[in-house]
Amino acid sequence: MKLLDAVKAPNPRRVRIFLAEKGVVVPSEMVDLAGKEHRGERFREINPQRQVPVLVLDDGTAIAETMAICRYIEEIHPEPDLFGADPVERAKVEMWNRFVELGVFSQVSFVFRHGHPGMAGFEVPQVADWAEVNRGRALEQLAWLDGELGRRAFVAGDRFTVADITLLVAVDFMRAARIALPEDLANLKRWYAEVSARPSAAA
Amino acid sequence: MKLLDAVKAPNPRRVRIFLAEKGVVVPSEMVDLAGKEHRGERFREINPQRQVPVLVLDDGTAIAETMAICRYIEEIHPEPDLFGADPVERAKVEMWNRFVELGVFSQVSFVFRHGHPGMAGFEVPQVADWAEVNRGRALEQLAWLDGELGRRAFVAGDRFTVADITLLVAVDFMRAARIALPEDLANLKRWYAEVSARPSAAA
Repeated sequence: MKLLDAVKAPNPRRVRIFLAEKGVVVPSEMVDLAGKEHRGERFREINPQRQVPVLVLDDGTAIAETMAICRYIEEIHPEPDLFGADPVERAKVEMWNRFVELGVFSQVSFVFRHGHPGMAGFEVPQVADWAEVNRGRALEQLAWLDGELGRRAFVAGDRFTVADITLLVAVDFMRAARIALPEDLANLKRWYAEVSARPSAAA
Repeated sequence: MKLLDAVKAPNPRRVRIFLAEKGVVVPSEMVDLAGKEHRGERFREINPQRQVPVLVLDDGTAIAETMAICRYIEEIHPEPDLFGADPVERAKVEMWNRFVELGVFSQVSFVFRHGHPGMAGFEVPQVADWAEVNRGRALEQLAWLDGELGRRAFVAGDRFTVADITLLVAVDFMRAARIALPEDLANLKRWYAEVSARPSAAA
């Protein structure tokens, strides 16, 4: 098993943090995104969407998509669970992970891809208005999550789950997207300090 | 258990088809989207993202997000499985479902929300350029899926899964988004005719 990985890109980092929380070591092979290695024909055979991360199993089966990879890891290494322990908890974790993906992570990615001059050669065409709309949406959702994190320790409940990984990576990716984290989100900052201090956050 | 549902909206239909394939009957309560019932304060307490569908359990627990609902149903009614039968198949189904969600379903939704005059009061601001970019992306991805469906019966493999539900609902939603299905996608049309003929498609 090996992970097709990349430095700086947010989705591969979600998988690396997930593996670190599990205590699972998977050899990585770095893909050169700046050199557009993922846009080449060789990579297309591995993942037709030409994105990292991809988990390649020993028989050559290629599993793309961050959540497909994390769920597969959860199945073969169930403990500690990061998707919930029973059907209702798993439903809540999936719901919160989706809320964060669709409300913050995607928005920060849109701001980066459509607003950053360095992405002009990758995101064609860049739609500047779309970047601006998403800057506002990401900040709105973070303000809402700040309220939620005033009522419980973690995104989906009282313990750390995959939803916290998604939010941590999204918040850290705000730097690349040039979105400042508002100073007044005290609960979010409390949560951010805690999850950033976990050893997995260095992944 | 009851499903907060809505006519015409694509995500609630994904859940209805999923339930129909399972043979599971859940009472529905219709939410008036045109009357903005989902934007009111009462609904915010049920789902802070103010979207349908929401599955409300007997103890009042509200599960929002289409995939969280479908996964919960799969857990309490495992057969017939629609997410795969073993870890590798489940990883592939999740991968293909994400490919369709992130490559076709989201794009068609963006075209509808940002391009349809009737959505001007719901999607503020509408970004017309974003609608156009996504019209092109949806068509590119459908052309690619046409090739994939030339090599196997269904989206994720040789049998019907949740990924087929996502694509079916996305293709049917193209009418509302005013995107014509290209005539030359013969494999996609073969697949579409087959999945549309399943009794669940009437849901």
